[in-house]
Amino acid sequence: MQVTQKEMMYEGKGKKLYNTSDENLVISQFKDDLTAFNAEKRGSEQGKGILNCNISTEIFKLLENNGIHTHAVVSIGEALILCRLVCIFHMEVVIPNVATHPMSKRLGIKEGEPLPFTLVAFYYNDDALRDPLINDDHALILQCVKSVETLDELRKIGRKVNEVLREFFDKRNLILVDFKLEFGIDNSKAILVADEITPDSCRFWDKQTKEKLDKDRFRQDLGNVKMAYEEILKRILS
Amino acid sequence: MQVTQKEMMYEGKGKKLYNTSDENLVISQFKDDLTAFNAEKRGSEQGKGILNCNISTEIFKLLENNGIHTHAVVSIGEALILCRLVCIFHMEVVIPNVATHPMSKRLGIKEGEPLPFTLVAFYYNDDALRDPLINDDHALILQCVKSVETLDELRKIGRKVNEVLREFFDKRNLILVDFKLEFGIDNSKAILVADEITPDSCRFWDKQTKEKLDKDRFRQDLGNVKMAYEEILKRILS
Repeated sequence: MQVTQKEMMYEGKGKKLYNTSDENLVISQFKDDLTAFNAEKRGSEQGKGILNCNISTEIFKLLENNGIHTHAVVSIGEALILCRLVCIFHMEVVIPNVATHPMSKRLGIKEGEPLPFTLVAFYYNDDALRDPLINDDHALILQCVKSVETLDELRKIGRKVNEVLREFFDKRNLILVDFKLEFGIDNSKAILVADEITPDSCRFWDKQTKEKLDKDRFRQDLGNVKMAYEEILKRILS
Repeated sequence: MQVTQKEMMYEGKGKKLYNTSDENLVISQFKDDLTAFNAEKRGSEQGKGILNCNISTEIFKLLENNGIHTHAVVSIGEALILCRLVCIFHMEVVIPNVATHPMSKRLGIKEGEPLPFTLVAFYYNDDALRDPLINDDHALILQCVKSVETLDELRKIGRKVNEVLREFFDKRNLILVDFKLEFGIDNSKAILVADEITPDSCRFWDKQTKEKLDKDRFRQDLGNVKMAYEEILKRILS
């Protein structure tokens, strides 16, 4: 089946989404743009979109191979992934293994301290409100999801993703510090990991040097942003 | 049995706690002090301690009569309640029926809007951190409680308290807008509603006029603070 790209349906901070000739499929195009602090800081890094597309494609494959369903169908060229159309839940699922700012400051936990167990936290996806932390009741009142069972399912999938990725990156000499997932529901009502899994949405530290190899290099003006993303892709493919 | 008051063991923003001759009992003394915004705003209202003691005593009796266990044993004079000694969970259990600031602003819900269902939210009890909202995982990591079952129990008791109080105050022409509970565990491992239930810890609005009859009068410099607390006690006793 030949799927052709049609008009842009949505442009976010990191990606553009295009309709296709198949109503159940969309094309996700990864942008070179970098944003941080609810888009108050903006930048760009040529080639980052392609890198993130390749990284995300590999990680989605890894998840699928471990029985975790994602929206990704297949990479279709430079910075483009063909994806199942999903209705995105308006919440971010954040999974920290190590306490980092701002959570560490908010809760008085020392930055860089491994957590006694892996947290799952939901944030309301709203830039204007600065993505506030929410609990289950808030998620229901804000209509992010329809039932607490869905929240339990998101927690369960999130923890499984963490198990798979932690082990995978550990073997590649990287600490998966924390990461953010977005989920969506497709036409058959299946819950799928959506959006992206990249150094924009994860924190990676080199296991020995603790060097940061993710978007914190942009957030904290550490330089060599693209080199860090290249290093992540290299280790993923190793 | 004669219980005698011994030395002060703790002084908080709104109360002092004294040891007694019975190691399982303490005396809680309600202060006239008023604090708001994590004690950044301070004041005092002569006679407020006695009013709050009387209000809390009546409400704890009401809860006990409805099968909800509290730490209160008996009022023993001006501003003093004899209480069971409990180990307090370091979290606040906040139960809003109506969206008010700061929650309304944080989540983008219109202030004064009745919520579609009664929320229960946990906050880490730490002035220096400004009592941050926490989810269940945070509560466990911060060791506020030992198990998620305890959190479920706190939610269950909190909702029951809300049912009882809402109906009670509705009959007295008052809207129970929201309230904060603290819980503790006694020597027999029973979970008890502790601390206080007063216009310092609840928001009450007159049903017709929507006049605020609680600590918001102090927070927002509306005046007639003591008169509002007197009005609440009067309606409770009516």
